[in-house]
Order: sequence, then structure tokens, then C-alpha cells
Amino acid sequence: MIEHSLAVRVRYGETDQMGVVYHANYLLYFEMGRTELLRSAGFAYSELEKRGLYLVVTESSCRHRAAARYDELLKVTTRVARVGKATIRFEYSVDGPDGKRLAEGHTELASVGREMTPVRLPEEVLLALGS
Amino acid sequence: MIEHSLAVRVRYGETDQMGVVYHANYLLYFEMGRTELLRSAGFAYSELEKRGLYLVVTESSCRHRAAARYDELLKVTTRVARVGKATIRFEYSVDGPDGKRLAEGHTELASVGREMTPVRLPEEVLLALGS
Amino acid sequence: MIEHSLAVRVRYGETDQMGVVYHANYLLYFEMGRTELLRSAGFAYSELEKRGLYLVVTESSCRHRAAARYDELLKVTTRVARVGKATIRFEYSVDGPDGKRLAEGHTELASVGREMTPVRLPEEVLLALGS
Amino acid sequence: MIEHSLAVRVRYGETDQMGVVYHANYLLYFEMGRTELLRSAGFAYSELEKRGLYLVVTESSCRHRAAARYDELLKVTTRVARVGKATIRFEYSVDGPDGKRLAEGHTELASVGREMTPVRLPEEVLLALGS
Repeated sequence: MIEHSLAVRVRYGETDQMGVVYHANYLLYFEMGRTELLRSAGFAYSELEKRGLYLVVTESSCRHRAAARYDELLKVTTRVARVGKATIRFEYSVDGPDGKRLAEGHTELASVGREMTPVRLPEEVLLALGS
Repeated sequence: MIEHSLAVRVRYGETDQMGVVYHANYLLYFEMGRTELLRSAGFAYSELEKRGLYLVVTESSCRHRAAARYDELLKVTTRVARVGKATIRFEYSVDGPDGKRLAEGHTELASVGREMTPVRLPEEVLLALGS
Repeated sequence: MIEHSLAVRVRYGETDQMGVVYHANYLLYFEMGRTELLRSAGFAYSELEKRGLYLVVTESSCRHRAAARYDELLKVTTRVARVGKATIRFEYSVDGPDGKRLAEGHTELASVGREMTPVRLPEEVLLALGS
Repeated sequence: MIEHSLAVRVRYGETDQMGVVYHANYLLYFEMGRTELLRSAGFAYSELEKRGLYLVVTESSCRHRAAARYDELLKVTTRVARVGKATIRFEYSVDGPDGKRLAEGHTELASVGREMTPVRLPEEVLLALGS
């Protein structure tokens, strides 16, 4: 199973008046996580787009266990949970600086072409993701 | 069942380079939806916070069926799906200007006090939400 | 001078841990302001883009006098301050619910084509903006 | 003159439908820049807040020369341009991966206490910032 961990520093603008990271921002941490997982697997997602392949988020979820705070260095761990012909499921966890689990979630992505219609994932992507 | 609908105009800054609304922004539309549902039910969430009651998002999900685009006037419908002693589950749908379903999702919120420990929802809130 | 006012409700996610609107979000309020000013002047910016004309922000500034807070209904006033052959300068002010001035700013926009090279503003835009 | 450089990777969610970084997001890059400059000067801004000192943005500007794109590794350079008794002026520049200047800007910050009234910058901050 392909897994990748990334350190993300919480920005001030990502907090809200409760004094913690606003919940929607975890989806941006997830996005950073899968971008870096793909890069570590051998290809940049930005290159895929230049060749006309887009991965669109069709589903997401996040469960919050504890709050992240400004300036904390979070550990975002991303795993490839399932690879289909034209879909990838990523799972994520976010841990605080003391190792405490803060959040868990997933996103389902579909591969589409320039016209936003489904296309098969390229062979090299399937291989790189161990499928 | 309490339900509320809200018109939300897509901002330019909410789109991404795919030319559609970035997926995480739906959670902000959901937030606007529940704020206005609560107001229509008779109380402003901002007033609850001033009295020391916070509703924190403990869980969220979103399923994307079609894309929203810049400047479109979306219809965000929010429903109270379940009210517990210290939790509220909201469900949401987002429709495009032509009535097409774009997204559906939910959030689970927990009521906590200033110290971020669980507290019961005030009687007036339970009543207002039909529980 | 063309001027337009718009009511904007502050979202929770726009606040930061200081308990006020995070400063960068004023630029999004400005964006909403000029979108609605253009619409009220007779054309939707989204239509311009479909025809291959883009207005890119080349400069922005904001001066903050007082803080905006969650759930407040702000008044965003937008003025066309100057129209050139391929540039528009907008000026903005943001007032709180009690009429207090919260912020002032400007953006300079340049009209470019699909290749991001400068193009003259269409005659109809110049006319609509009183130039 | 105290100066600090930081590498920032552009997130997908920071782009807009023009295919470039949405202009308001540069203010978040600036925020990251000054946070890291302060840390490199010997103190974490998050610690100042815990002691009741807040630096609020009273003014900002940004001039855009060229566009930043998704996944690019930007170089954000932050300088302390002026330190007053209760104000700090930071200046910023953002360069692309090829060294091309993309943007320049500034922010003026005022030091305030918990009641949001002006307070003098602590001696240690003045010293650390070379004033």
C-alpha cells in the first residue's frame, strides 16, 4: 500500500474565531497530501493535467477528533486505498505535533478528459499506484 | 422537518483552474446554509457563541454530482436531520441555476462550552429545531 | 461616476482566531463588489470571459480601520475610479452594520485576451463604464 | 535589514479559473513569510499572542507582475522595512521557480493588546528586529 507523509504548518488565515483550524481547510491539507503522494510515486499531477487528464473530487469526508491550532506543524498521511479503472480512493489522517490524531478522511477521485467525461487512468499511473 | 433554502452566488475566488468551484468551498456553502436555517428558526448562531455555546463540526461529507461555475446562483438547501442532546446533524443539497443537483452532503455538529467540553443544547434550541 | 453597493454577510470561515474577518478576505468582498457593479452597468463579467476577455488584477491595496465580525451584514461600495484603454481602476469601501467605516481599498485591472496579452476594452464596456 | 526567504508550494485550491493563483492568496503567502521571518529572528508570533500581544494588519498592498501557477515552488522573500513603537512594516516579493519576479507588496502591522488597543512592541521584539 502506497503511503506518504507530509508536514504542513498551519497558517493564521486557516484558523477561525474558535481559535482552531476551520474544518474546510482539512480538505486543502488532503489535497496537499495526495499531490505529494503522487509526486513521490513518480509523477506530478500538474503534468497529467498538461496531457489532458484531470482527477476530479467526486466525494469527500472528514471526521474531526481534536482541533489543530495556528502555527502547529501537522503530519498529513495519505494512503491509496483503492484504484479502479478510472477512480482512485485516497484516505488521510492528520496528526498534531504531539502525535495525537486530529482528523481522518477520504476523497474519491475520478479521472476525466478535457471534456470532463470519464477516461481510463493511464497505465503508468496504475503501475505507479501499485494496481 | 425543518428545512431552509438559500441562494448563493459563486465568487471568482471560489473557482479553481478546472474552471469549476473548488470542492472544499461547498463546506462554506453548507456553513452559510445552517447559519441561515438557524436564523430562520429564531436564533442567530452568533448569539449562541456570545453566551458561551459553540457548535463544532465533528464530521462532514460531500458527494459531487456535477460542477458549479463562476457567477452561478446556487440553491443551497439545509435540513435538520437529527437532533441529539448535544449534537445536530444537518443535511445539505446544492442545486444549479437550472435545478440540476450538483452536490449533497452532511455535517455533524457537537455543542461545547468555552472549554470545548460537551454541553447540552439549550432548551430553546431543541424546541426551535423541533426536538 | 458609477457606484454600486452590495450587502455581504460575513461567513464563519472568513474569521480568524483574532475573532475578526481575516484581512485577505476583504479582497474577496471587493471582487463581489466589482462583479455586481459590472452587472448593474449592463454586462456580466462571466460573459466577457466566454468571449475571450479577461480582467486580471494587477494591483490591490486595502487599509483597515476597524474589524468586521462574523455574521455582520457589511456594505461594500464599489466605484469606477478610472477607465483606460485596457485598464480599470476600482475603489472600494466597506462599512459595518452601524455605518462605521471598516476598510477602504482599490484594485487595478488590466484587460487581456486568452493568451494573457493586453487587449483594448470593448466599446460597450467603455460606454457602460461612462468612459 | 532583516530578511527571510521561504519556499511555498502552490496548492490547487489557490488557483482560479484563469489557471493562475487567485490574487488574494498572495496575502497568505505574505503571512507565511512574516511568520517565518519572526521565527528566524528568535520568537514565534504564536507565543506573542499567548502573552496577549497581537499584530493586526492595518494596511496591505500587492502589485502583480506575472502569474504563479499550480504546483510551482515560489520563493517568498520578507523584509522588515520599518519598526515603530507599535508598528512594523514588512515588504515582500514573490519569485517564480525560474527566478522571475511575480509580485511585490507590503503590510503594515500594529501591535495591540487583548482589548485591541495599541500597545508598545516588547523590547525583545524591537531588539530582534534590529530596532
